[in-house]
Amino acid sequence: MAEPLTAFCPYYHQAVELVGGRWTGVIIRAMLAGKQRFGELAASIPGISDRMLSERLKELEAAGIVVRTVYPETPVRVEYRLTPKGQALAGVVQAISDWSLEWLVPREELDSHRAAG
Amino acid sequence: MAEPLTAFCPYYHQAVELVGGRWTGVIIRAMLAGKQRFGELAASIPGISDRMLSERLKELEAAGIVVRTVYPETPVRVEYRLTPKGQALAGVVQAISDWSLEWLVPREELDSHRAAG
Repeated sequence: MAEPLTAFCPYYHQAVELVGGRWTGVIIRAMLAGKQRFGELAASIPGISDRMLSERLKELEAAGIVVRTVYPETPVRVEYRLTPKGQALAGVVQAISDWSLEWLVPREELDSHRAAG
Repeated sequence: MAEPLTAFCPYYHQAVELVGGRWTGVIIRAMLAGKQRFGELAASIPGISDRMLSERLKELEAAGIVVRTVYPETPVRVEYRLTPKGQALAGVVQAISDWSLEWLVPREELDSHRAAG
């Protein structure tokens, strides 16, 4: 958009606090990177508890960002996927990631960090 | 960046929870839109208390995102400005704003909302 931002927008408010909720932005990033199983998500996010991951996935489902599919196999297989609304957050995740690499990474770590993506 | 995102990055984690902290993303947006005085910020953000605004501004100062300048006038004038690190969040705010307009605004409100910026 070419117009300057207004000082306040309720939809922006809702979006920024949704994505920035504790662990939420991290879970969305892991899903964008292809993680789909509960165990895969838990393993890829250091420090998250199963209970917290489960709560956040339920919130994201309620917000229409994640869909949960249960496959009736033995043992039951459950997959989480981003909806189109969730996939559309890729630009947000990328913008935050870019800013963090530019402004939060200590200079001496920057080269190795960039190389790791 | 052309490379796909890794599933987890600690700097991204830090950034997304900083910007997404309660009221924080909203305050940064109001500052990007030019609000500099405490009273202007408070007036432009519906529902925020003076105490919460004050706490968040202190956190943002500690994070190097905001600088506070006190002008020794009568009455004392205090201004808050984004540092270059804070101004660099413009892309993040824009990405979240774009997503919110695309995915959160009810269709019947969309035209009036876009027109208002």
